Amino acid sequence: MGFSNELRSRAAPIWEREQTHSFVTGIGDGSLSLDKFRYYMRQDYVFLIEFCRAIALGVTKAPHMTDMGWFATLIHETLNSEMALHVSFCADFGITEEELLATEPSPTTWAYTRHMINTAHQGSAGEVASVILPCSWGYCEIGQKLYGEGLPANQPLYGRWIEAYNAPEFQQLADWLRGFVDRHAETAGPAELAAMERAFMVSSQYEYMFWDAAWRMEGWPVGI
Amino acid sequence: MGFSNELRSRAAPIWEREQTHSFVTGIGDGSLSLDKFRYYMRQDYVFLIEFCRAIALGVTKAPHMTDMGWFATLIHETLNSEMALHVSFCADFGITEEELLATEPSPTTWAYTRHMINTAHQGSAGEVASVILPCSWGYCEIGQKLYGEGLPANQPLYGRWIEAYNAPEFQQLADWLRGFVDRHAETAGPAELAAMERAFMVSSQYEYMFWDAAWRMEGWPVGI
Amino acid sequence: MGFSNELRSRAAPIWEREQTHSFVTGIGDGSLSLDKFRYYMRQDYVFLIEFCRAIALGVTKAPHMTDMGWFATLIHETLNSEMALHVSFCADFGITEEELLATEPSPTTWAYTRHMINTAHQGSAGEVASVILPCSWGYCEIGQKLYGEGLPANQPLYGRWIEAYNAPEFQQLADWLRGFVDRHAETAGPAELAAMERAFMVSSQYEYMFWDAAWRMEGWPVGI
Amino acid sequence: MGFSNELRSRAAPIWEREQTHSFVTGIGDGSLSLDKFRYYMRQDYVFLIEFCRAIALGVTKAPHMTDMGWFATLIHETLNSEMALHVSFCADFGITEEELLATEPSPTTWAYTRHMINTAHQGSAGEVASVILPCSWGYCEIGQKLYGEGLPANQPLYGRWIEAYNAPEFQQLADWLRGFVDRHAETAGPAELAAMERAFMVSSQYEYMFWDAAWRMEGWPVGI
Repeated sequence: MGFSNELRSRAAPIWEREQTHSFVTGIGDGSLSLDKFRYYMRQDYVFLIEFCRAIALGVTKAPHMTDMGWFATLIHETLNSEMALHVSFCADFGITEEELLATEPSPTTWAYTRHMINTAHQGSAGEVASVILPCSWGYCEIGQKLYGEGLPANQPLYGRWIEAYNAPEFQQLADWLRGFVDRHAETAGPAELAAMERAFMVSSQYEYMFWDAAWRMEGWPVGI
Repeated sequence: MGFSNELRSRAAPIWEREQTHSFVTGIGDGSLSLDKFRYYMRQDYVFLIEFCRAIALGVTKAPHMTDMGWFATLIHETLNSEMALHVSFCADFGITEEELLATEPSPTTWAYTRHMINTAHQGSAGEVASVILPCSWGYCEIGQKLYGEGLPANQPLYGRWIEAYNAPEFQQLADWLRGFVDRHAETAGPAELAAMERAFMVSSQYEYMFWDAAWRMEGWPVGI
Repeated sequence: MGFSNELRSRAAPIWEREQTHSFVTGIGDGSLSLDKFRYYMRQDYVFLIEFCRAIALGVTKAPHMTDMGWFATLIHETLNSEMALHVSFCADFGITEEELLATEPSPTTWAYTRHMINTAHQGSAGEVASVILPCSWGYCEIGQKLYGEGLPANQPLYGRWIEAYNAPEFQQLADWLRGFVDRHAETAGPAELAAMERAFMVSSQYEYMFWDAAWRMEGWPVGI
Repeated sequence: MGFSNELRSRAAPIWEREQTHSFVTGIGDGSLSLDKFRYYMRQDYVFLIEFCRAIALGVTKAPHMTDMGWFATLIHETLNSEMALHVSFCADFGITEEELLATEPSPTTWAYTRHMINTAHQGSAGEVASVILPCSWGYCEIGQKLYGEGLPANQPLYGRWIEAYNAPEFQQLADWLRGFVDRHAETAGPAELAAMERAFMVSSQYEYMFWDAAWRMEGWPVGI
């Protein structure tokens, strides 16, 4: 069993809570309010931009050119394909590109992305991969799970979202990332493995918190 | 009026909320429960360690040797004087050094310190100084305010805490930091000034949130 | 006149020395020995990998998504197109992929790429762009200059090299990079502009030194 | 045998060349020309400032507070004690503080310090320690060796330099650094150990090159 499976297994209670959060199940059965989904889409737009800043540090730190190339592809796919999907979705949901650009990160979006970019600055390429893996892999699992349960009849836009994260190209990138974590772990010592685990566990918490923040439509505590 | 005063003035509503938070006023009048204060002291111990990681990037990035030296002094004072105070305090409050070492950062401690270290990695020396200033300066203001209102008769340990942050050496470091922000701002363009302001404003939010998390004795959402 | 033109003009004596170096003119007239060119190709392979690490920090640091996307494209083009060109060239020159992978950076390759990645870690997105610009722009100028003078009849492989760097796609990326430097400079203060200039000037020196190291087939001073 | 001893042993041919370089032996027997020594002192002044930027990243990256404290002490000693020594020495050698401040790094000073700071940005705390160790440890060995051979009668200023690097406080910091490398290596995997070794070996080359650059009074190839 590769190291990524060990990580997945240790984080199982968090992933279980994530996948059964009312926000996630509400996408699946179409019961989620559009307001909450709109809030989520705008925060996810901000998230993806910051996510790419962390991935880019994978290019800076990966020892071998082939892995640098994969991190570069991951940025490219995120900044182009996934982002284009967001902009197109948002248009369908009545969110203009100006609104997207004007979106301020919520406390949870800020905290999660600071955690990711910071781990990427401070740690090894293995830590970069471990800190972004719960997002990439988690969305695959959710996409596949919801797709398997059938698309929501009453909310075709949520169906499109589910299909996007059920796509094989998306799966392929997550698979590469898991493979990278596994390979990197083979030549990592106990201190680095512990750092990779910590990065993964905290990101798993943030994945849950990200859905929860969208559910609560969270804002900063002090308005100014 | 220097740039630090502009920043202070724009953040005034946040600082007002911070200084009137029940946690802060409860230290001043001795009404704060010891449980909450113990929680705070343990989180602040973790905070100070991570705080030093951000300050160290000030040494890495400051253009001139004299400023590098000041950032180095700030690390030294924090890791030694302020930390020793914490350990001694904690002993008086019945917290052992083992407990301190075993303390896990709360979500707010993690988010705030990720914000600081990350800003320090991504930004200029002026941004490093701006992101740590609300902590250094804010504690001076609180120390002086509470000291001016008189130490709590019923809770001498809180009185010692107040005296520590009212000390002139502590003030001197905050003054240097403000001066550095002011000087750095003089040769910074509008983009960097905006980044400095953002760093300062978000840290001000986190200062408030740090007291509030201690008040709520915050934990991570998913226990594992 | 944009800031990039100012930089180009201040570095003119260095660029003049570069473009008239025997290595460069020897590519143009076909007089360069194949041994020296092989040495250069192997070092340039190592260089391009490290170059991408610096560009990736442009993704991490660029304030706006569009610019992040351009830096990502620059990585993609370098790691894929330009690298594939190198591997194919090297095959034609009798250098195997194993030899490429086993190439150790020379002192100059190491120094230049440390300068670039380090500037990218320490500085702003404008400094990232300024430190990589002399490579991107300089190769365009050399490609166009040598192409304009006619391809060397006796050495068709050098002709292919010249054509590659005379290609419009290559020019387009250098143009974007210049445009980014120009735009970034518009909101940068004097301290950042000075840092951008320093980054550009030192990289210009290294561009010259890189050709010269290839001419001397430089190695490390102490063999081990 | 700790990992630092393994590193020392692998780098032995480089250290041997370093310790027998005419610059080093010329300090010992007083035969070194004052012009060369002045050049060296000015470059070393620039070096120490940049050296501290690398050490500071040790504070940012060290996992435990005690080690953060030692890195902080190392900065403090370098920026204050060792630097004060330089300024006082320089005064005795007829170099003013203005001249020191106006010194531009030579290519070798730039390359060596870029190598150090960059390794510190990209790597672990173990790599930070490994990349700065050849300087700290190497000067101890030279200080002790030259002191053991007797101070040069004709050049008392060189004698003072030898005494400074023979001082027990200087030795103590190098000892801590070696101990840190040894302890860090115990929980590092093969990939990180290889990176630590590479950092150490390249810094050892640069230590030799630094003396050699001073001997040649090296400048940048293209004057502007």
